[in-house]
Amino acid sequence: MRVYRLPSTYDGEEEITLKGKEAHYLTNVLRLKAGSRLLAQDCNGVRYQGVITASASASCTIRLTVAGDTSASTDALPSYEEPFTPLVLLLCLLKGRKEEQVVRQATELGVGKIVLVSSEYCTVRLDKKNPRTRFSRLEAQITEALQQSGSRVPTTLLDRVLDLRELAEWWAGRGPLLFLHQSSRTRSKDLSTYAKTFDPNAPIGVLIGPEGGFSEKECVFLEKAGFLPVFLKSNILRSETAAIYALGSLQELLHR
Amino acid sequence: MRVYRLPSTYDGEEEITLKGKEAHYLTNVLRLKAGSRLLAQDCNGVRYQGVITASASASCTIRLTVAGDTSASTDALPSYEEPFTPLVLLLCLLKGRKEEQVVRQATELGVGKIVLVSSEYCTVRLDKKNPRTRFSRLEAQITEALQQSGSRVPTTLLDRVLDLRELAEWWAGRGPLLFLHQSSRTRSKDLSTYAKTFDPNAPIGVLIGPEGGFSEKECVFLEKAGFLPVFLKSNILRSETAAIYALGSLQELLHR
Repeated sequence: MRVYRLPSTYDGEEEITLKGKEAHYLTNVLRLKAGSRLLAQDCNGVRYQGVITASASASCTIRLTVAGDTSASTDALPSYEEPFTPLVLLLCLLKGRKEEQVVRQATELGVGKIVLVSSEYCTVRLDKKNPRTRFSRLEAQITEALQQSGSRVPTTLLDRVLDLRELAEWWAGRGPLLFLHQSSRTRSKDLSTYAKTFDPNAPIGVLIGPEGGFSEKECVFLEKAGFLPVFLKSNILRSETAAIYALGSLQELLHR
Repeated sequence: MRVYRLPSTYDGEEEITLKGKEAHYLTNVLRLKAGSRLLAQDCNGVRYQGVITASASASCTIRLTVAGDTSASTDALPSYEEPFTPLVLLLCLLKGRKEEQVVRQATELGVGKIVLVSSEYCTVRLDKKNPRTRFSRLEAQITEALQQSGSRVPTTLLDRVLDLRELAEWWAGRGPLLFLHQSSRTRSKDLSTYAKTFDPNAPIGVLIGPEGGFSEKECVFLEKAGFLPVFLKSNILRSETAAIYALGSLQELLHR
């Protein structure tokens, strides 16, 4: 069930009138009309049964009453209701727009945690003048994607860039960690084969290389750390395509 | 095996020297060095065994000899070698950049045919002044993606926009046609369930709705036409994410 996140200014009022982009979202994207019901949640996690009382393209009024998780109903779009596999996306630094795109799409998909990684072939370096800008931009993408997708997984972004060589220590064996490499490794298996052996309720890491992939030295390091080389049953893909391909396929294979 | 597409100016010379972007691609992206071998193909489909004779970041010289498909070898990155399922992407019109992104990524993945579709909730209309601009931009994306991905599937774009109501007639039952809808239809199944019943060598259509999905009337029409509603085991996704999720998952499920 899709949950509408109320603006942070909402403070328990019986009625709220939304304007502009927010109103557009409810009336044009979700296509809710006067009388439509929706499930809403405020920034403290309190859930409300909402009923649209007035709706126009630039304004939308909702009457709200506190509701339990189970008693509320919605006319908004339903989505997959089962538990999500806790996916961790380890993404080698990409150029600005591509990186934002992957972060946004991974959030939509319900990835639990996103971690930026720097590796040998990364051509992108963090801005030394203002290293926080990158994180702020990505955080904004996550917030917007959470709102739009109605994802119930609160995606978080690690607040620093990991060096590939730190990865084994940071990951600390919390579950299988897959890495996608452009050339086939002797031990490479496809996602379906791996998925059969995975516990869908335990964390799974997915490491996506930069354009140009990983160096031979890095591949050896990753394999020694016990990480699992993946062979995709497709063409050689760009990082941003490989990421969504792999995350989506894992959900399709692991979610019941 | 990755095949390098020679520039259209190549006319059978024994040696070719590439400059700029093309040289960068071979030396920096594929990381080929002097002595590295690669498989090349000219615009007539003739294949060559190439050997890099000189390589720098802004210039790369290749010696070429005509080769059969089987005798040539390459140090460039390998990719999936088995036959590709003939996927047809039926994409409802999206806003410019998103549409280009999906077309580019679908080409990378080796989708055989891409068709633009207009439907009730499409907010994008073709430019009446210059309807060809959209197609030219998309064609350019396809050409570049074919080159970069080394895809052996010659992706084509239908040269007009189909109306959703024409779809049944145009498709003419050439295989199963899946449509992704945001709300679950009574008959919806997930991709894995459908994939089990599909012939991986026959065409499979994947229809992706616009933002806002399909109207109830359209869903009824699509189901009456025998098209198959799909339920993704994820959140509600934007069109551009759903497209790559579905195409990638199908390859993972159908390719051996």
